[in-house]
Amino acid sequence: MILETLRWVGGLPGHVQLIEQTRLPLEHVELQVRSVDEMRDAIYRLAVRGAPAIGVAAAYGVVLGVQALADTSRENVVGCAREAAATLAKARPTAVNLFWALARMKARADADLARGLDGPAIVRGLLEEALAIHADDRDRCERLGRIGAELIPDGATVLTHCNAGSLATGGMGTALAPVYVAHAAGKRVRVYADETRPLLQGARLTAFELSTAGIDVTLITDSMAGRVFFERRIDLVFVGADRIARNGDTCNKIGTYSVAVLAHEHGVPFYVVAPLSTFDPDIADGSQIPIEERPEREITEGFGRRTAPPGVQVYNPAFDVTPARYITGIVTEVGLVQRPDTAGVEAALQRGGVRPTAARSRT
Amino acid sequence: MILETLRWVGGLPGHVQLIEQTRLPLEHVELQVRSVDEMRDAIYRLAVRGAPAIGVAAAYGVVLGVQALADTSRENVVGCAREAAATLAKARPTAVNLFWALARMKARADADLARGLDGPAIVRGLLEEALAIHADDRDRCERLGRIGAELIPDGATVLTHCNAGSLATGGMGTALAPVYVAHAAGKRVRVYADETRPLLQGARLTAFELSTAGIDVTLITDSMAGRVFFERRIDLVFVGADRIARNGDTCNKIGTYSVAVLAHEHGVPFYVVAPLSTFDPDIADGSQIPIEERPEREITEGFGRRTAPPGVQVYNPAFDVTPARYITGIVTEVGLVQRPDTAGVEAALQRGGVRPTAARSRT
Repeated sequence: MILETLRWVGGLPGHVQLIEQTRLPLEHVELQVRSVDEMRDAIYRLAVRGAPAIGVAAAYGVVLGVQALADTSRENVVGCAREAAATLAKARPTAVNLFWALARMKARADADLARGLDGPAIVRGLLEEALAIHADDRDRCERLGRIGAELIPDGATVLTHCNAGSLATGGMGTALAPVYVAHAAGKRVRVYADETRPLLQGARLTAFELSTAGIDVTLITDSMAGRVFFERRIDLVFVGADRIARNGDTCNKIGTYSVAVLAHEHGVPFYVVAPLSTFDPDIADGSQIPIEERPEREITEGFGRRTAPPGVQVYNPAFDVTPARYITGIVTEVGLVQRPDTAGVEAALQRGGVRPTAARSRT
Repeated sequence: MILETLRWVGGLPGHVQLIEQTRLPLEHVELQVRSVDEMRDAIYRLAVRGAPAIGVAAAYGVVLGVQALADTSRENVVGCAREAAATLAKARPTAVNLFWALARMKARADADLARGLDGPAIVRGLLEEALAIHADDRDRCERLGRIGAELIPDGATVLTHCNAGSLATGGMGTALAPVYVAHAAGKRVRVYADETRPLLQGARLTAFELSTAGIDVTLITDSMAGRVFFERRIDLVFVGADRIARNGDTCNKIGTYSVAVLAHEHGVPFYVVAPLSTFDPDIADGSQIPIEERPEREITEGFGRRTAPPGVQVYNPAFDVTPARYITGIVTEVGLVQRPDTAGVEAALQRGGVRPTAARSRT
């Protein structure tokens, strides 16, 4: 069973059911979210995480904010939708998908108001839009999965880093989607999951969702990837992405770059799997991607217990950039960009209808 | 202040004072060890660890076993020394230095018995021998330090993996000795320490001993090493070794190989620092070095809390092998073996008076 991170339950009124990710892997608890404030907290607390999943959650959050108001004035419904969006936008500052999804919800409310629809119709329109955002995400994941699965030979072993699976999206994931599709098609496929220090998304989330789906998964520490390549256990690598520059340089969870160098040294193909929304055509190469540094305590006491001497200096970059030359290909929903470079990326963006550079707005 | 892992306190009778390493880094507690059984427990519990340090501790343990018996028969003193050695040999199965040190103690007891010395003189001889084993170790560390320090330019930043410092030896360490010598000579030197999953020797021990010694140390997770190389923060790498084959292939703590590949990719010199006792002339290359696999729980609940789903498969090799081609040089107490190969290693062993292959005995 591929885990479903979140879903809308019922019609109108309804609510959102989420997997409470902070309790994984030891407890698989579903959280029932019934208000804007509860949804904002769920996103803030990382009960739901992963950029695509957060976008879907926020869209549903807007519906939660207006569903009881259908019988008030149509202006009030739209005003409250905007208010809900403003509240949800403050839940986390960096995930671009959150703002995109909220902008799409606001645009729908405005359009339906302008069309003269009444309150109940505007609320119905917002639920329809949120469901469409969710369906789009699910559809994109499936397309990534189908295209990526063609790269997986029968009997292959895949290495992955962090969690870019169903727990991070509204569908079957990005990096893990090809594994799910290959498995469903009857191919034998095994996965090695890096535990992914400091926050252990590989141990807590990837190992959990793959074993729940019946996929053969083996957990290793990040430091063991080199040995595992050396022993020729790995046939190919799939990772997700947080931002991809116009030349194909890819920003992803810290440790991805080490995996890419090791794959390159051992002649193992290294694939990034990401929807076109992850590309940033405003950025020419990876050197312009800012790398977030996170709190020291993630390293010094990341497991509820202090494991480093008090006062020690810590460097904790949350991401790294893998130069395009280490990337065998980028799997997108419009096809595989092989040996990515600026021309290849621009062609894919054009094929996907992504408008060039400055024309795009972030909020 | 460079930490002194262990020392003999007083004359005869005396006792051993050890840093209780299981309590580091949060508590710096000295353990007073007064009997063979206490010493066996200290080694077994990893209160003292690191192959050279364990050898010294065991030698002192033999003295603890006989010092109250000086006035019994000389045969009884030697018999009890052998008994103490047999008990201590069972504390840990793999550290070669433990057996070497105990064999040296037994040989001394036998020789003094044959020379017709009386009980008190045999006991004094055993303390003398243990102090000599300790002094030899300290001396070897200093020679490694002096030779290795010549490789460190003023203002350099060193990356290290695991703990091969004063906490692992009877002296100032192996991989960290060059750092201590360079620092004492007034060179500015900074260290990045990999935390070294699964057992966190880098976070718990290396970060602790370097900061205690006033050396600028920054802690990172193993997954960050690639980024740190990419940002050109590292000038050279020093690591220790658990076993070195005749061609220079080096077995060391898991993760060392990844660091070596990354150093190679970024043109950063990668040095192994190890005494000649670490070389195994019976082994032609690294493929013949057996890699110990350790319990799953080191990965799944390594921090006192379960962080992976129950039943997940785990691969936990404790060591990896870095092929000689990734090694810029091996620092030994008889000099630097540059670009190590069989000829270079054999020449160093000969210079150090190490007998070739099958002539050496392990116990």
